[in-house]
Amino acid sequence: MKTIPSIIKIGMLGCGVVGGSVARELASSGADLAARAGAKLELTKVAVRNLSKRDGVADSILTTDAESVVTDPEISLIIEVMGGIEPARELILKAIANGKSVVTANKALLATHGADLYAAAEKAGVDLYYEAAVAGAIPIIRPLRESLIGDRINRVMGIVNGTTNYILTKMDEEGLPFEVVLKEAQALGYAEADPTADVEGHDAAAKAAILAGLAFHSRVTANDVACEGITKVSAQDVATAKSMGKVIKLIAEAKRSDQGISVRVAPMMLDRSHPLAAVREAFNAVFVESEGAGQLMFYGRGAGGAPTASAVLGDVVAVARHIVAGSKGPAESDYADLGIAPKGASITKYAIRMAVHDKPGVLANVANVFAKEDVSIQTVLQKGRGDAAELTVVTHRATEANLAATVAALSKSDVVREVESVIRVEGSAS
Amino acid sequence: MKTIPSIIKIGMLGCGVVGGSVARELASSGADLAARAGAKLELTKVAVRNLSKRDGVADSILTTDAESVVTDPEISLIIEVMGGIEPARELILKAIANGKSVVTANKALLATHGADLYAAAEKAGVDLYYEAAVAGAIPIIRPLRESLIGDRINRVMGIVNGTTNYILTKMDEEGLPFEVVLKEAQALGYAEADPTADVEGHDAAAKAAILAGLAFHSRVTANDVACEGITKVSAQDVATAKSMGKVIKLIAEAKRSDQGISVRVAPMMLDRSHPLAAVREAFNAVFVESEGAGQLMFYGRGAGGAPTASAVLGDVVAVARHIVAGSKGPAESDYADLGIAPKGASITKYAIRMAVHDKPGVLANVANVFAKEDVSIQTVLQKGRGDAAELTVVTHRATEANLAATVAALSKSDVVREVESVIRVEGSAS
Repeated sequence: MKTIPSIIKIGMLGCGVVGGSVARELASSGADLAARAGAKLELTKVAVRNLSKRDGVADSILTTDAESVVTDPEISLIIEVMGGIEPARELILKAIANGKSVVTANKALLATHGADLYAAAEKAGVDLYYEAAVAGAIPIIRPLRESLIGDRINRVMGIVNGTTNYILTKMDEEGLPFEVVLKEAQALGYAEADPTADVEGHDAAAKAAILAGLAFHSRVTANDVACEGITKVSAQDVATAKSMGKVIKLIAEAKRSDQGISVRVAPMMLDRSHPLAAVREAFNAVFVESEGAGQLMFYGRGAGGAPTASAVLGDVVAVARHIVAGSKGPAESDYADLGIAPKGASITKYAIRMAVHDKPGVLANVANVFAKEDVSIQTVLQKGRGDAAELTVVTHRATEANLAATVAALSKSDVVREVESVIRVEGSAS
Repeated sequence: MKTIPSIIKIGMLGCGVVGGSVARELASSGADLAARAGAKLELTKVAVRNLSKRDGVADSILTTDAESVVTDPEISLIIEVMGGIEPARELILKAIANGKSVVTANKALLATHGADLYAAAEKAGVDLYYEAAVAGAIPIIRPLRESLIGDRINRVMGIVNGTTNYILTKMDEEGLPFEVVLKEAQALGYAEADPTADVEGHDAAAKAAILAGLAFHSRVTANDVACEGITKVSAQDVATAKSMGKVIKLIAEAKRSDQGISVRVAPMMLDRSHPLAAVREAFNAVFVESEGAGQLMFYGRGAGGAPTASAVLGDVVAVARHIVAGSKGPAESDYADLGIAPKGASITKYAIRMAVHDKPGVLANVANVFAKEDVSIQTVLQKGRGDAAELTVVTHRATEANLAATVAALSKSDVVREVESVIRVEGSAS
């Protein structure tokens, strides 16, 4: 018979904002966490790059030798909050090979090497948990992995990057241009000095890949995600959306069709009545459509030390319970193996905003271009006169290929001065 | 070594709307569910009150002998969707005593006898899962039970009854009185012929007790819930709330203070900007405030065959995985044992609407009454003139005892014709 451990020793890789918050909680909520986990949780080693003092972490447990943490025979649970691909990947694999369960918040790593890591954990009979990797404190991994496991998910749409949602919220509510709001966000600490990963959508793309893999029980990596950021979203786009009762959000979307899985990060116009439209500032939310449950939404803080630490600690207690019980949680499954849909197959509605010449017959001319490419028009919004005349056409659902052909034809048309923007409009699931 | 079952035989108690939906899904999604559970899931017996034909359920597995289902040695998992306290309680206990794990959607039973059932399951080493018992398809039990297990929850506020939310939505959006909307809801099937359990708040109270117990790791039953329904909410109350930028919702609230846990179901005014304010019609949502994660919200369909079946099937697959792995999920814990706060201790903001005599000095007079009882006023709204003159006072946070004394004094005041309503106003957590 297995002996039940009364203490579970924990090693941590990294001790930044999230790691510091985790360490302090492990210390200050020790009795509560022990009662919930069924064993005392003790942080015994923390790998850091330099040994400078950490608030709330005893100097004696700090080490610069990360390898000694993942190979320590006394430690049975590793928390990885160092981020980045290497050496995190190698250290996690070594921890798993040494029979340790792992809790990680590393979205970039999971979106790239997830399948290898899941397979290694499954083979070693240990847990690999990662609630904190997507949408911070919001429980979304566990609901997808467990609560909805008896259902069939058709689509997942998320606002999973707080920086871009903060910027788009300010653009919408204050009418300011992107560059101005970005500077303000940087000054307030909502955006980094180099904001590329956020504003170009790469951070959201990693999360989209993880959500898609879980939702559709298939293997999806960040490379499978069509990714477009918000740098081209102009104050005019935001104002146009507003005048149509819509709001522009950066959406990470994963959906399935007969052709496979499509995963995308792109600015999207949503009706103001859509549950995601009300998600303001740095908040995150994930909207799920499934056969049985219908529409679900999960809302909360997507980043920050304490919220992310909450997700990490939830996983730590869950994994500790498994260690106490001598069991493990469900493995990842990619049994469905749906495959990635070919590019251009995705069917969506679009809003095309164009500067036009202010002369008779413009609308008929433009409508003709759409008709020729087999893209049907839902609404047209006309704004301004003379040199400032603008037309925004919202289409019915069309393929990306037909839409691209339409935009090319519009650019060559005599009556169109310039196609200024093309933004997806939230429509139905397929 | 334990042999891994390739088939898990399932018995079901009850076959109404939810049960029928579960049975059809088990049949039609068999291959998917088997891949996810790690074993084929086979429904082999269904206990019903009469043997009339059920769509999608083979006659051969129907039986009126419920006892034979929970004692069948071949069956390892029981789904209870019959509802009501008895015989559901006795049958579940017998199933557990026979070593079977149980998935139930029975909120009334869990809110009354939950502690006994959890203890029996723990003793027998089997799972008792109940995601479907609160807020239908919305994953809320698992997030509270697992995702937030490393955090400290301070408050849970939920819209957990679709019927009353539908009625209040119509009252708000169409300005209609309660009785008219109730009839309409009954005609549409949103409300039952006898709507008592919904409109008096009893259904929400059972769910509030379950949520409170989970959130605070303590024992809470339906008897601990202060319960007030929506039958006294008038069109005037709704209109007054609207003119103050608020909306009235039936809220199930559980919060903790130094004095213990307070659990309540009551109509409450929320700011229109509150995430729960946008939850319309029959949708449900649960809002959670915790130390680490901050504010979270879970939104979706709270009732109906397919949504509830989604929650049941999620539990069935989770429990089946445990059976395959020879493990079990986390047990319920009431280690914190916070106790129930004394009545009248709860501190809240209130809106008091009263008909007043239209003469000079009314406001000063009314303000004096509040001051005498130590209840401070936040805002005053005056409406109408002459016989229709009305005053609505929104207080700062006050104890229930002070508020009751104020209302008694107002009723006796010369300037107040009648205190027409007293409704709680959402404030801070304590």
